[in-house]
Amino acid sequence: MTDEVQAALETIFAADTGIYQPRGFQRRVGFGRRPALIHIDLANAWTRPGHAFSCDGMDVIIPAVQALNEAGRAKGIPIVYTTTAYAVTSGPNTDMGLWHHKIPVELLQIGSPEVAIDERIAPLAGEHVIVKKRASAFHGTHLAGMLTAAGVDTVIITGVTMAGCVRHTTEDAIAEGFRPIVVREAVGDRVPGVVEWNLFDIDAKFGDVEPLARVVAYLEELEPVESAESVAAASGQ
Amino acid sequence: MTDEVQAALETIFAADTGIYQPRGFQRRVGFGRRPALIHIDLANAWTRPGHAFSCDGMDVIIPAVQALNEAGRAKGIPIVYTTTAYAVTSGPNTDMGLWHHKIPVELLQIGSPEVAIDERIAPLAGEHVIVKKRASAFHGTHLAGMLTAAGVDTVIITGVTMAGCVRHTTEDAIAEGFRPIVVREAVGDRVPGVVEWNLFDIDAKFGDVEPLARVVAYLEELEPVESAESVAAASGQ
Amino acid sequence: MTDEVQAALETIFAADTGIYQPRGFQRRVGFGRRPALIHIDLANAWTRPGHAFSCDGMDVIIPAVQALNEAGRAKGIPIVYTTTAYAVTSGPNTDMGLWHHKIPVELLQIGSPEVAIDERIAPLAGEHVIVKKRASAFHGTHLAGMLTAAGVDTVIITGVTMAGCVRHTTEDAIAEGFRPIVVREAVGDRVPGVVEWNLFDIDAKFGDVEPLARVVAYLEELEPVESAESVAAASGQ
Amino acid sequence: MTDEVQAALETIFAADTGIYQPRGFQRRVGFGRRPALIHIDLANAWTRPGHAFSCDGMDVIIPAVQALNEAGRAKGIPIVYTTTAYAVTSGPNTDMGLWHHKIPVELLQIGSPEVAIDERIAPLAGEHVIVKKRASAFHGTHLAGMLTAAGVDTVIITGVTMAGCVRHTTEDAIAEGFRPIVVREAVGDRVPGVVEWNLFDIDAKFGDVEPLARVVAYLEELEPVESAESVAAASGQ
Repeated sequence: MTDEVQAALETIFAADTGIYQPRGFQRRVGFGRRPALIHIDLANAWTRPGHAFSCDGMDVIIPAVQALNEAGRAKGIPIVYTTTAYAVTSGPNTDMGLWHHKIPVELLQIGSPEVAIDERIAPLAGEHVIVKKRASAFHGTHLAGMLTAAGVDTVIITGVTMAGCVRHTTEDAIAEGFRPIVVREAVGDRVPGVVEWNLFDIDAKFGDVEPLARVVAYLEELEPVESAESVAAASGQ
Repeated sequence: MTDEVQAALETIFAADTGIYQPRGFQRRVGFGRRPALIHIDLANAWTRPGHAFSCDGMDVIIPAVQALNEAGRAKGIPIVYTTTAYAVTSGPNTDMGLWHHKIPVELLQIGSPEVAIDERIAPLAGEHVIVKKRASAFHGTHLAGMLTAAGVDTVIITGVTMAGCVRHTTEDAIAEGFRPIVVREAVGDRVPGVVEWNLFDIDAKFGDVEPLARVVAYLEELEPVESAESVAAASGQ
Repeated sequence: MTDEVQAALETIFAADTGIYQPRGFQRRVGFGRRPALIHIDLANAWTRPGHAFSCDGMDVIIPAVQALNEAGRAKGIPIVYTTTAYAVTSGPNTDMGLWHHKIPVELLQIGSPEVAIDERIAPLAGEHVIVKKRASAFHGTHLAGMLTAAGVDTVIITGVTMAGCVRHTTEDAIAEGFRPIVVREAVGDRVPGVVEWNLFDIDAKFGDVEPLARVVAYLEELEPVESAESVAAASGQ
Repeated sequence: MTDEVQAALETIFAADTGIYQPRGFQRRVGFGRRPALIHIDLANAWTRPGHAFSCDGMDVIIPAVQALNEAGRAKGIPIVYTTTAYAVTSGPNTDMGLWHHKIPVELLQIGSPEVAIDERIAPLAGEHVIVKKRASAFHGTHLAGMLTAAGVDTVIITGVTMAGCVRHTTEDAIAEGFRPIVVREAVGDRVPGVVEWNLFDIDAKFGDVEPLARVVAYLEELEPVESAESVAAASGQ
């Protein structure tokens, strides 16, 4: 994106903020007590070059996700990866629903290397990979029920794409009753501009956009999950 | 179940019907124009002996499902199997949610032979296996969105267990806007009585319980899906 | 229900328990730390005589709900009532969906006295009345999102009917990640037998059926909601 | 929005289209055979000046909605309005969930004139007003189930705001299996830029953005709903 276009976007964001703030938008939802990490579609079709779904910025996004995982794993919080993949990519009975009428999801065959999570951020035993069919990690998946059962109140969201799956996931997260935190350095897309304006919309209305350092610091200060469980048990619950 | 107990149940059903019918319950939802077959949890843990989840009656259920599949495949309708299986069966971050606090779902490890669909009714290419986490085939899955996108208006339901997953699926089906047809010979359970009373409750309120022969006849009279698609295309839609 | 039929049901329940228990079913989900009260369809069409939806046993159910409300209000927990009502009860564009093809929901006109909550258990300011369209209090409503946002982990369920809305609500509750507690004296139906067999199925698989006295005692020992909030605030969250 | 900023946005859109199109994005989902009209939050708080939620462009949006309603009513299609409103706007047990931590939804009291549908586009008998709690018209509402039961395959979406409720509704619509058509002249917002970039994102990935004239023409050519029902009846279904 040229400096000129970036400057134009910043001009709009400043004007919009001048309207939003006096009206009471752009508030902070804040961090809760029991977070989960949700990594959206960081599978090879998105993280590696040469695919219709390839995204930019992985030199920043992958290390950011690694840092978040390290901090999160130290506390035993739930870590969830999503990928988008389909069992039946042709004919009238497809699990693509209608989405192939808009974008080339017929390229995302379940079980193929393209839809496997990037090995640089490989899930460990005890972590989850949810194969979703739609943009949102919540839509048509067991994510909300699993998080509610685990007592989670906050979802830290990373991945791609900002204009698609990350945005829809964030909107659904607050609708489901979870505090959405979108990590600025850990999200990306494949076309210019859309990261900026979608982060702007989200921060105004659906979740807090926070820098990586602050999110890592929050995780490092967190009480480990096991200890929280033990306290509950000790208090006779 | 002894004859005596069966007789007692029939006595209750007759009394209840005497209250339901004058009040306008026990109506017929009927067959629609675009059905799908939904086979609930006909995986080895349920269909074979020796497992905590083993069910009775497979000598009748399996042939009934084979007959339905044969009739349905001839018309190209969507065929969906479910199984129930988990990636993380211990610790606080499990995808079992809270269900292992009621029933032994920790025995259902994803990828194990126990949770694979029984090979006597093996899915063909183009058919769907949905790994669900809860009782209902709709809850936390992409089933409703996939069926709506395919124009389905009727779900023909088989499988086990009648007191658990089949019942919850049927309740959700009508809630989602699909006509539920439960095939009497194609459903079962693992303890006496529960098939009868759950079929009674369902037929009173949530879906039509129909004999296999009638459902097969309905499928045989159906217009094939491809032909319906072609008509739509020909009319310029 | 005659003694004879009741005895037959108990015979079945004992036989079924003899199969369920060694297999690891009929476990206890238990009480959590943050409950909500969910009263299903205790509106006049169900609680008063003379309607197609009228239920039995209100001389026990209504006082039980009053006792639960008194205990729950003292602790400031969320209290939610549901009713079932429709804006458009004829024609192809009805919000009844397909349900009027099974039961007479066309009699439940939104805004009519029949679908108002029974005044003996009238909601207070700050309590919720959810107008649902389907059997489950969760299906097509904001209930799950509201409870998750409030940090609720347990739903105490009362009301009618046991074979319909109470059962479907309970199944959905555990699927959504909440601990379902069904209060034995506070649930009912309109035909014999169905309360007993649905409580049996639920206790085996979906939630704990508990006597009123135990649930009231649990509520009385609970930390008030405000105090819990203050603790959270004090700890800097 | 100044011409300069508008020009900058068009520059980005052109660049992004140059990436999207060769990769197979920006396809057409197209019109189906059974549409419904979904008007998002065209209630007084959004359509009239002086409110924190007031939006711009009602001189174009209101007539566009009137034209759509006239064409849709002539064919008997489902017409659904949403509003966003809350019963409990303070304290820990609110139906606002967490959304008041981002935007001033505490100003939207259920039953107040502010949340009533604008009388210039007043709903008629037989049309629906859904009171939603979240951004999407589908999230936590009976909309999807009602539309599926009615055989709807296409949702024509209007209203406000483009960066909030209209966008989330459109994303959910295609996820649920409905073809989303967003009417360019019938959508708006309250800050500059967001209509343009959200329409761009939607047209690239989630639904078709179409001019009013084309949508009205589509509705005018539609077979009336009653006639479709009669055909079905005549064919013995």
